[in-house]
Amino acid sequence: MPIYNAPTKDLDFVLHDMLKVSHKDIPGYDELDRDFTSAILEEAGKIARDVLAPLNVVGDTQGCHLENGVVRTPEGFKEAFDLVREGGWTGLDCDPEYGGQGMPYVLATAVGETHVSANMALNMYPGLTHGAYSAIHAHGSEEQKSTYLPKLVSCEWTGTMNLTEPHCGTDLGLLRTKAEPQDDGSYKITGQKIFISAGEHDMSDNIIHLVLAKIPGGPEGVKGISLFIVPKFMVNEDGSLGNRNALSCGKIEEKMGIHGNSTCVMNYDGATGYLVGDAHKGLRAMFTMMNEARIGVGLQGYAQAEAAYQNAVAYALDRLQGRDVTGAKNPDGPADPLIVHPDIRRNLMDQKSFTEGARAFVMWGATLIDAHTRGGDDDAHGLISLMTPVIKGFLTDKGFESTIQAQQVYGGHGYIEEWGMSQFARDARIAMIYEGANGVQALDLVGRKLAQDGGKHVMAFFEMVKSFLKDNEGNAALKADFLDPLKQASKDLQAAGMYFMQNGMKNPNAALAGSTDFMHLFGHVCLGLMWAQMAKAALEALENGGEDKSFYETKIATGRYYMARQLPATSMHLKRIESGADPVMALAAEAF
Amino acid sequence: MPIYNAPTKDLDFVLHDMLKVSHKDIPGYDELDRDFTSAILEEAGKIARDVLAPLNVVGDTQGCHLENGVVRTPEGFKEAFDLVREGGWTGLDCDPEYGGQGMPYVLATAVGETHVSANMALNMYPGLTHGAYSAIHAHGSEEQKSTYLPKLVSCEWTGTMNLTEPHCGTDLGLLRTKAEPQDDGSYKITGQKIFISAGEHDMSDNIIHLVLAKIPGGPEGVKGISLFIVPKFMVNEDGSLGNRNALSCGKIEEKMGIHGNSTCVMNYDGATGYLVGDAHKGLRAMFTMMNEARIGVGLQGYAQAEAAYQNAVAYALDRLQGRDVTGAKNPDGPADPLIVHPDIRRNLMDQKSFTEGARAFVMWGATLIDAHTRGGDDDAHGLISLMTPVIKGFLTDKGFESTIQAQQVYGGHGYIEEWGMSQFARDARIAMIYEGANGVQALDLVGRKLAQDGGKHVMAFFEMVKSFLKDNEGNAALKADFLDPLKQASKDLQAAGMYFMQNGMKNPNAALAGSTDFMHLFGHVCLGLMWAQMAKAALEALENGGEDKSFYETKIATGRYYMARQLPATSMHLKRIESGADPVMALAAEAF
Repeated sequence: MPIYNAPTKDLDFVLHDMLKVSHKDIPGYDELDRDFTSAILEEAGKIARDVLAPLNVVGDTQGCHLENGVVRTPEGFKEAFDLVREGGWTGLDCDPEYGGQGMPYVLATAVGETHVSANMALNMYPGLTHGAYSAIHAHGSEEQKSTYLPKLVSCEWTGTMNLTEPHCGTDLGLLRTKAEPQDDGSYKITGQKIFISAGEHDMSDNIIHLVLAKIPGGPEGVKGISLFIVPKFMVNEDGSLGNRNALSCGKIEEKMGIHGNSTCVMNYDGATGYLVGDAHKGLRAMFTMMNEARIGVGLQGYAQAEAAYQNAVAYALDRLQGRDVTGAKNPDGPADPLIVHPDIRRNLMDQKSFTEGARAFVMWGATLIDAHTRGGDDDAHGLISLMTPVIKGFLTDKGFESTIQAQQVYGGHGYIEEWGMSQFARDARIAMIYEGANGVQALDLVGRKLAQDGGKHVMAFFEMVKSFLKDNEGNAALKADFLDPLKQASKDLQAAGMYFMQNGMKNPNAALAGSTDFMHLFGHVCLGLMWAQMAKAALEALENGGEDKSFYETKIATGRYYMARQLPATSMHLKRIESGADPVMALAAEAF
Repeated sequence: MPIYNAPTKDLDFVLHDMLKVSHKDIPGYDELDRDFTSAILEEAGKIARDVLAPLNVVGDTQGCHLENGVVRTPEGFKEAFDLVREGGWTGLDCDPEYGGQGMPYVLATAVGETHVSANMALNMYPGLTHGAYSAIHAHGSEEQKSTYLPKLVSCEWTGTMNLTEPHCGTDLGLLRTKAEPQDDGSYKITGQKIFISAGEHDMSDNIIHLVLAKIPGGPEGVKGISLFIVPKFMVNEDGSLGNRNALSCGKIEEKMGIHGNSTCVMNYDGATGYLVGDAHKGLRAMFTMMNEARIGVGLQGYAQAEAAYQNAVAYALDRLQGRDVTGAKNPDGPADPLIVHPDIRRNLMDQKSFTEGARAFVMWGATLIDAHTRGGDDDAHGLISLMTPVIKGFLTDKGFESTIQAQQVYGGHGYIEEWGMSQFARDARIAMIYEGANGVQALDLVGRKLAQDGGKHVMAFFEMVKSFLKDNEGNAALKADFLDPLKQASKDLQAAGMYFMQNGMKNPNAALAGSTDFMHLFGHVCLGLMWAQMAKAALEALENGGEDKSFYETKIATGRYYMARQLPATSMHLKRIESGADPVMALAAEAF
């Protein structure tokens, strides 16, 4: 069975050595000292290792089953979920007014990584609930908040997002689910939604569906979409549960992975729903969930990579096969461990340097969210809004690749299900697709976010890189291995942006044809910046006589690897982008 | 259900416009005129489309089941296999002396592509049988040949390769299976083999296992390995089947994909075996199978990509979602088809340009094999021996990536099993692993093949590229789009080779740390060369007033895409290689 140990030391390094969270001027961050976060992360890590991880393969093997309208989740899932919610983990960063613990989002994110690594499918139940919590918290009426939030915070009730319909995914303007106003102010919701994660299950007392639907007579397309709360069981005035609402799970999908999460076809047959926020403004509320979900999905990408990496390392240390070409390392054994082989090293270093860079990137992103939500910093909001498609798209593309690399270390043993390496890849695969397929992320980045607010946010990012380079130009230990490659990569990114500006106005396809390459180019520059910052922090820790010298030295060596071996991808992406729209758009549709 | 249509037109283009097979001075090639190959490929394509493809999802869903020692294959598999073998398809390139049709390998390869695309798992049964045929044909005694070959050619009996044991895969020196000599000249084989594809099943009357084992008292390590024929049922002198041999299937593995093929744990309990070739020289015979199998696996890589691509195109043309940013293409419909979107185009062009380039590469490789086996051309043998790890490693890495891209076009529908896109990816994944994991291919390429015969073969390859560039330097239509990028990519490859020469002697790890990058760099240059040759052929066909103008124009545009958007990867791989061993080898084993 696969192992998992929470990387608490590395999380603490990112939070304290690199981001120095407790010194940031963000409300609530002064509490986040190293002792406190270590204690929390240790506890979270224990649950991840001892409760969630052992159920990961169980969830994959057993899957979810629909019988007479009831969905059975895998054995042990409910008990584990109860343990998590009773421990207060699901409301860590939620509003204390509704039973949450009011901690910063960055801490909840660090905890979340460990739980997602251990069991992605199980963690989707609280994950989606948190999205529903956020949407209602931001857009719901006072009555809706007091009715639903306490139960969502405690996860006694869980939540869902109902967007997709059989004929429409990304293009929500096409949706057909209808919401007919009733005399009592409620609506009757009718339609079919598909791919609804955690749509029906036996893990909670009630399920609060957030459903996008159209009120007849409203504007066409996405401007006529409204958001509704549609509970599985009606909620009485005293908060107790009433009748079953007119909705049901029609089918559970057979999927490539995340078998432990029930992906449902949901049928709404005149179900009672309650409008959230203003009529026809549902998209705005939906994006509250969506943006949060996208960062969560980016986290899934590298969290699965982390879990897969840990197992790849264990196997590479254990499996004896072949000899080190420079001389036997295990002369008394029949062969040397796999880890002596340079190509296995390359493979593991690819994974390690990606995962640690991605962790820093997501934690930094989480501090931007806190800076905005807790500190009212609009620039931070602009920056994370720019970064969201990069976090989602780049980290899930690369995270999946990383799980494939981990699987490869096992050779044939990686292909059979027994070792669990296939599951990491199959589970990670969905993250490239849901909450907006990665092509849509690239479109969002290039078609919308780049130019948002007059390009202010991307300029702020470049300024950040420039300042870092300038502030550290005298640092000889960083210069050749970190600053120079970062500078080059950042130039490539600027050149790509320039290409879009010069060509995208005349022909939008000239920009859009390069959108995925731009997203990857941007992602590499972000990880390059993270690595330069981490290397700086590690060097400082070494100078200050940090306790664990080998940890910091390993950190610097891993960063060097990223800069030397991953960052050169930027010039390739730039060349592709600069080849423009013609090669991409040359064929007639029927010539494919 | 997924579709599949054999790309007979493109195969004919490669065989005739590009490779001009019927004009090659290789025995038997004069028969390969366009009418003949078209007729064969049409028929093969019909079987692929009508018989094999419809069983692909069935095989995945039902899998193989072991009950009381008997393995049941999926419904319809045996009937389809009977149809294929009765049609004479399994012996297409086999020796007429043993019932084969004596056709060139290149034609069998073209036919094979269509069958592998349609149903990879099913086609492994005849594929492995062909490997066993080749090993016995090359190394067996006359008696062994006359006993086994006719039945293997007709696939009345099937074959297997038994190499891997629980504790050893790549490192065959570790193997423990014992072969004890008996008085009658036979051996008693005892040991356990794992991951034996088609090890036990209900598709044929007998199964001929080719088993690597050690004769006690022989040399240590790989020099003490011998190859044995171990039939499931003993064969009587008159050719009829006798008693069951002392071997059995202990277990069927649960795998990520290729569920339709039974992957078995095989237990040999003093089973009767017959030495093939000389004692202790089994590795040489095994490599006869292995080299053939590696090219076959490279073919699986792009053949799965082809099948996945066809379905991605169908979906992109059909699914309405969003609008073309440059103006609606389907103004009367609710939305435009996916194919209008530049990022979908990029995705499809990546797949198309890879798959067509790979097809040309493998077919060219097949002509080298024919030039050697039919024409005695040792240079051709040297060149294909150099190319084998590139064909296997590069085409399966890229082929898998391509299936993932195809799956991505479907969004959420790609993740559920219903549409079959997950299966293409799950099936293609094994090709990166078996017959030597791709890291081992890279090691073979850099550690062995590059320097083979004093580097003669790689020099011949560079010479080929140089000649092509020189012969066509006046061709303005090829210059900027094809010749210049090919020249640059080839320079990158030479620079990488130079880096290895200058640094690999002092420190082998300096070369091995770059081995996978070198394999990819080499693969890109090969596909770049193929595309330049195909573009030239298409331009000639257009000048000659070729019938299907749009086919040739599409070919040139697809090639342009590859050169502009894929080939720039070479400089990234070179940079990685030139960063040397240090970043890769920096960490102590315990620091991972």
